Amino acid sequence: MAATLKDVAELAGVSTSAVSRAFTPGASVSVKMRKRVDDAAKSLGYSPNVLARSLTTRRTKMIGLVSNNFHNPIFLEVFDLFTRGLQERDLRPLLVNLTDETNPEKWVQMMLQYSVDGVIVASSTLSHDFAKAFQDVGIPVVHSFGRYSHAPKVHVVGIDNVACGRMAAAELVERGYRKIGFLGGPKQATSTQDRWAGFQAEAKSRRSVKLTHSFASDYSFDAGRLEMTRLLKGSPQEAYFCGDDILSIGAMAAIRSAGLDVPGDIGLIGLNDMTMASWENISLTTIHQPVQQIINASIELIIAMLDDPDRSPEYRLFLCDIIDRATLRPKLNV
Amino acid sequence: MAATLKDVAELAGVSTSAVSRAFTPGASVSVKMRKRVDDAAKSLGYSPNVLARSLTTRRTKMIGLVSNNFHNPIFLEVFDLFTRGLQERDLRPLLVNLTDETNPEKWVQMMLQYSVDGVIVASSTLSHDFAKAFQDVGIPVVHSFGRYSHAPKVHVVGIDNVACGRMAAAELVERGYRKIGFLGGPKQATSTQDRWAGFQAEAKSRRSVKLTHSFASDYSFDAGRLEMTRLLKGSPQEAYFCGDDILSIGAMAAIRSAGLDVPGDIGLIGLNDMTMASWENISLTTIHQPVQQIINASIELIIAMLDDPDRSPEYRLFLCDIIDRATLRPKLNV
Repeated sequence: MAATLKDVAELAGVSTSAVSRAFTPGASVSVKMRKRVDDAAKSLGYSPNVLARSLTTRRTKMIGLVSNNFHNPIFLEVFDLFTRGLQERDLRPLLVNLTDETNPEKWVQMMLQYSVDGVIVASSTLSHDFAKAFQDVGIPVVHSFGRYSHAPKVHVVGIDNVACGRMAAAELVERGYRKIGFLGGPKQATSTQDRWAGFQAEAKSRRSVKLTHSFASDYSFDAGRLEMTRLLKGSPQEAYFCGDDILSIGAMAAIRSAGLDVPGDIGLIGLNDMTMASWENISLTTIHQPVQQIINASIELIIAMLDDPDRSPEYRLFLCDIIDRATLRPKLNV
Repeated sequence: MAATLKDVAELAGVSTSAVSRAFTPGASVSVKMRKRVDDAAKSLGYSPNVLARSLTTRRTKMIGLVSNNFHNPIFLEVFDLFTRGLQERDLRPLLVNLTDETNPEKWVQMMLQYSVDGVIVASSTLSHDFAKAFQDVGIPVVHSFGRYSHAPKVHVVGIDNVACGRMAAAELVERGYRKIGFLGGPKQATSTQDRWAGFQAEAKSRRSVKLTHSFASDYSFDAGRLEMTRLLKGSPQEAYFCGDDILSIGAMAAIRSAGLDVPGDIGLIGLNDMTMASWENISLTTIHQPVQQIINASIELIIAMLDDPDRSPEYRLFLCDIIDRATLRPKLNV
């Protein structure tokens, strides 16, 4: 069994409260006493209970990591980078799975109960208000992959989804596509709304572009396949900007199952550039979202808030660029 | 800001220690007093701090969820099922990412510091001793996807990997393949060793079967692609049992990049039956591992150990079966 505080006190020949003080940052304790306790603790392999200490230090070093899409492979990369980034800074992720939930109330209570030092909401589909609910009860919060806003109420780290929508439309037009479509994520998701707004604005600014749009129920393979299967029953467009990579991969499966070719019959461009997009069996042309930078910035911000909880909200946006692979026809020579 | 215990005491008109007792299971407190405190707490939206309570109850309701492969898409399914299963039972997963680590020492200390109620090691590559290190310091532990053993030292939930290896070899032979190979996961992984042992034993029991084997560096797409690319430079076998689905998908990419066809030129069978294996663009014939059942059983076991920490170790093995899709040639008509 693990050594206890009492064992340390006995070995050091001091009181348990002296041991407790020795492990409390800022507590009054002599250098000699601290050394005596440290030596005893080391020889017993004793670590002070972080949670017991947290009652004094008010720091649990736990960060709530809240997400709501475990059906999109990009999130495995997101969890990998977040957990490693937090661990490297001696922080612990308490993972919360909000599949199909949009009401923060219960989870705000839960985070309070666990006295997390902060919360990172990692989602492009949850609203600003969802993240703000944590801040309203005094929990530092960062919304990663959140919506750009001119006057953010919480820290937001992500990309400019409107600009990405514009970029996708411009790329399709420059490749000679004139009948183009948006096959978006869930309609109520802020990322879907912004990507569609940008795509639509850019398309409408171009001459003789015919535009359609529709939405998948979810950012998932099944939802992308289902929506493209439906589109193929009508008269599909020449190319589609899919809401993200996993929707693109689902759409690609539907197109090929119908005996059609990508990009021969229909072109596709995605968004994210998750690892899988580069696999030869997929080779998706897509807009690269700098996930590593977004996650680093999110962790830096949450740490900055621990020292300065009243830091006024800011947003950090990262630029995206197009990764050309094999799902759009080549650019026209002008 | 959130209400405190002091606020509740003031509103209820009682002492703070009375409030504290009212929230401590088993503490001496009258029904009338408990109701008074409950009503005050409810009207203020106050929740007792789980961590403060844990010092009395010795329960944090946190379960360490330890894994070491964030490059294999099967783990997104594993994390989804574990987090939801734990949340449904009011438990919280503290996620630990041990990519490239095999020494438990540091993590045992960490789990002690956070007073987790138990640890689930979700890995088919970590050793028995890794899981046992938690048990040795008194933390209940379940090794999910762990190695079958006649005399388990910790709770193990998983599959019989030797039987799966046998099943794969028998299937290939029954489909008329005579030159067959094992393209395994990392050599030091217990799952790799067991799958290879079974595959080898079954192949050797069959007449005129020619057998090769080699190992990928990791259960990942890149490792599978790399190893198959290497094999294609020599004279490849007619069919391969790949260590798992993600290795199979990597191998498939290598075969198709070389201008060859699956299953026309080379057959493939995987193991796991992760969601992606059923995508039309992949359509992998594979051995189904009942992940949902394994995870349910793991959670049930860890909960049983909370009530009975000295419960003697057991293993629960689940049966696998072959899901026939499109990467092996049809069965011979006998």
